[in-house]
Amino acid sequence: MATTRRTGQDRVPPHPDITTITLQQVLEALVDPVRRHIVGELYSARQDLSCGTIDLPVSKSTATHHFNVLREAGLIHQYYAGTSRMNGLRRDEIDAAFPGLLRALVAGRGD
Amino acid sequence: MATTRRTGQDRVPPHPDITTITLQQVLEALVDPVRRHIVGELYSARQDLSCGTIDLPVSKSTATHHFNVLREAGLIHQYYAGTSRMNGLRRDEIDAAFPGLLRALVAGRGD
Repeated sequence: MATTRRTGQDRVPPHPDITTITLQQVLEALVDPVRRHIVGELYSARQDLSCGTIDLPVSKSTATHHFNVLREAGLIHQYYAGTSRMNGLRRDEIDAAFPGLLRALVAGRGD
Repeated sequence: MATTRRTGQDRVPPHPDITTITLQQVLEALVDPVRRHIVGELYSARQDLSCGTIDLPVSKSTATHHFNVLREAGLIHQYYAGTSRMNGLRRDEIDAAFPGLLRALVAGRGD
């Protein structure tokens, strides 16, 4: 008997439209140094990265929480590639909505 | 008998050297919408403003707290002109330490 298999798309919650995101939401997401580190890694990599690729000083469940906050703030999109949850920076959309913000935060001195 | 009169300089606490300020401190100061509004007003005004000039939706003591946080984060300098506490944005120093950050935050859409 065939089992129902959920697709990757089913497993990733919806992403907000960037036009609904406020600067306040973006800053609340990026004031956290772990989340800023994730965004910095994606910014530098210039490619999508799986959650496990980004070295973080927190537990896996805490890391998952941080990735979720970033997705809910419109900063990253998430999808599955096989069993890996992939993360991509929504760079063009963010740059259009908040010009210069990403670069200023990623280029910023220290954490 | 002459009374000892405190000068304005005595009454304003010291200001941090901008080189000791981290992006984390600046973001923690600017994630608050009231503090971001103060910085936005100083940025637009391009001149120093007294505390009372900036219309804020909070009590006077809360406003004083917000100005203090901004001073401690290296974002504004404060001094007295008569009985008015004046506030100036440390724009050049912040721009040098965190290029593009102020403009990105002030130009940002919504609060």
